[in-house]
Amino acid sequence: MAAADAGRAVAGLQELRRLTGDDGGAQRVAWTDTWITAREWLRRELDGIEGVTVETDEAGNTWASAPGGRERFVIVGGHLDSVPDGGWLDGALNVLAGLEVLRALAHEERPVGLKLVDWADEEGARFGRSLMGSSASAGTLDPDAVRGLTDRDGWALPDALAAHGVTLERMGDSGSRLEGALAYLELHIEQGPVLEQLDLPLGAVLGTFGVQRHMVRFTGAHAHAGATPMDLRRDAFLAAARSALAWRDDAARRDDVRATAGVVKVSPGIVTAFNGSCEVSLDQRALDAHVLGEMLATAKADSERIAAEEGCEVAWDQVWEIEPIPFDAELIELADESIQAVSGTTHRLPSGPLHDAAEMARVMPTVMLFVKSLGGVSHTKEEDTPIADLELSVRALEELTRRTLSWAGERAVS
Amino acid sequence: MAAADAGRAVAGLQELRRLTGDDGGAQRVAWTDTWITAREWLRRELDGIEGVTVETDEAGNTWASAPGGRERFVIVGGHLDSVPDGGWLDGALNVLAGLEVLRALAHEERPVGLKLVDWADEEGARFGRSLMGSSASAGTLDPDAVRGLTDRDGWALPDALAAHGVTLERMGDSGSRLEGALAYLELHIEQGPVLEQLDLPLGAVLGTFGVQRHMVRFTGAHAHAGATPMDLRRDAFLAAARSALAWRDDAARRDDVRATAGVVKVSPGIVTAFNGSCEVSLDQRALDAHVLGEMLATAKADSERIAAEEGCEVAWDQVWEIEPIPFDAELIELADESIQAVSGTTHRLPSGPLHDAAEMARVMPTVMLFVKSLGGVSHTKEEDTPIADLELSVRALEELTRRTLSWAGERAVS
Repeated sequence: MAAADAGRAVAGLQELRRLTGDDGGAQRVAWTDTWITAREWLRRELDGIEGVTVETDEAGNTWASAPGGRERFVIVGGHLDSVPDGGWLDGALNVLAGLEVLRALAHEERPVGLKLVDWADEEGARFGRSLMGSSASAGTLDPDAVRGLTDRDGWALPDALAAHGVTLERMGDSGSRLEGALAYLELHIEQGPVLEQLDLPLGAVLGTFGVQRHMVRFTGAHAHAGATPMDLRRDAFLAAARSALAWRDDAARRDDVRATAGVVKVSPGIVTAFNGSCEVSLDQRALDAHVLGEMLATAKADSERIAAEEGCEVAWDQVWEIEPIPFDAELIELADESIQAVSGTTHRLPSGPLHDAAEMARVMPTVMLFVKSLGGVSHTKEEDTPIADLELSVRALEELTRRTLSWAGERAVS
Repeated sequence: MAAADAGRAVAGLQELRRLTGDDGGAQRVAWTDTWITAREWLRRELDGIEGVTVETDEAGNTWASAPGGRERFVIVGGHLDSVPDGGWLDGALNVLAGLEVLRALAHEERPVGLKLVDWADEEGARFGRSLMGSSASAGTLDPDAVRGLTDRDGWALPDALAAHGVTLERMGDSGSRLEGALAYLELHIEQGPVLEQLDLPLGAVLGTFGVQRHMVRFTGAHAHAGATPMDLRRDAFLAAARSALAWRDDAARRDDVRATAGVVKVSPGIVTAFNGSCEVSLDQRALDAHVLGEMLATAKADSERIAAEEGCEVAWDQVWEIEPIPFDAELIELADESIQAVSGTTHRLPSGPLHDAAEMARVMPTVMLFVKSLGGVSHTKEEDTPIADLELSVRALEELTRRTLSWAGERAVS
């Protein structure tokens, strides 16, 4: 039993950075030449593993397959594409760690097959639709909803896809690749500060948050800062400020939820008047759909009570929502055990951002591993993780893959 | 003893509106042709009062004098100039009420003289420096501080003044007109909601607020709305929100102070991140300098405590300050009695905005009368006051003028 070469995975990441980055950071934006450069590098690496077959599906996803004892298989996935001026690890770590796991396991006896997938266009950086390739496979990509998207140079999405041999209407056919899949595994940098704060290298991911996103508009009446006594004011900013604090205080009672007031716009917004209107965005996240629904109801009730107390009115407009996507309980156990095996300690945490794993969790048992992000920073060239932790993450992915193959083998029999 | 013709004052205001307003509102901006049209109308009215002499001083202020028994006098003042698209009452009510008081009292026996002044450029609408004429007379206008001002068409202030026969360097000579002055009286619309809320037509003004104005910048660190747990955030907007509420709560404990957070700017100000910086303006006002100083110290201490609790830093930059200008205690008594005499009830209140009376209060006993503003609205064509209240205000000014002349007569003897 050969161990995956964690050092080779890190060396590959550094090589990719040299090939596809510049002073601004990683430039592997999907459906661009630099992305193709990265994929060609991957293709050469995969072609060097004897017995592994490589194909690209109807959605532009690249599959590398090491056949197993039956026509069932476990998938390890990631994405080579990045945002413009992105980091060297987001997406690419998953693929290169998977490459070394595949290289190590390709010639071992396995109860089921093992596949590595490089999803096409996880970031949506050029056309604004993220999780393109994985959602096409999972059956959640609606061609009609994205056909009209254009990039900043006016290129239409269908034309950019066609230039890479992908036909928008046929992307969904890629779903057939998932027939026989028993589990999906993904390693990713955390993109948050939790593991670093806990001084832990690795964590098992519980799932991705559901999101409720609203614009909340408070309306009072502006008037002169000197002429209007405090008790006669209908100050929309203060109503919004109290509400934002109430939303935060409600969310702070649990560690598996978030509430964020990000956009804040006041009117008239001048030094000599209090504000007659204030618009605030509220982005709420939770792992549990029921909890998320309760948070929203509480936030609305709080804002209405506070607005009334401040002599204001409040109106809510939904901007976006997505349901929570919990990962598989048994695979979370395996992830926990794998992290414990390589690092001696572990932690479970939710994922703030979405990942391709969220699309896969809709159709099969799925779990993710997180490795520490320095400063919680990503989508910038400052994104980084210590080499020792990166190597540990490759070993944890290998450990999880081995355990999942065994687990999948039992399910394939039953 | 003839009573002032309150109806004639209101008719004059309506005539002025016809002559110097348009669909947007009053257009009597100082140092413009429309302002001259208004002043020429006033001049014709004053010339029609026998025994009254009319002169313009070195600052462009127009003085109408009805001599009294000695070379001492009481002044009633106002300003015909308006902001662009202004209201029909702000400033003009004072002048036209004073005109009718002067007309009524011109030929009566008086212990001291009576003068009406139409101050030049109270609003500062064209060049940004308000209280021009009255500050020149009071000796607080520094020519060097305003010489470089230009209007939006690039006209320099000294050139605009010269076109109206005023030499910037000689404006201070107008101060000699105040020699022998014993009191200054001014009627004005409230420009706030207090009297309307109390269902009172008139109030005696205690003085003008002192102002402390700062920009307060909170700095934390922005990060992703999903990836960062609530307890690891350094959210600058929430630090600012808590501080703004603390400032309001502190100010709400007294009815003679104000605190207003008007400008609110967050960064990055997007839905998917909490904010790493937030800039808020704080405009604090109080009638008592000691109270104002304590408010500022408390507000700073509150913001520093809250910023520390939120993991943020805070920095204060002063934008502007002016000391409180209290009016004369004896004249406030006379104003109270005069309002009581004409309306049967009275109320004392501070002035939020500044007025020419604030400049006069530096150099002589001064008081103002406020008449109700509908909706507390001014500096817009919607500015309005019921006719009955306007007429009552003219009668109150007459009553106050008579009482002040008697009071001044005693002082002139002593």
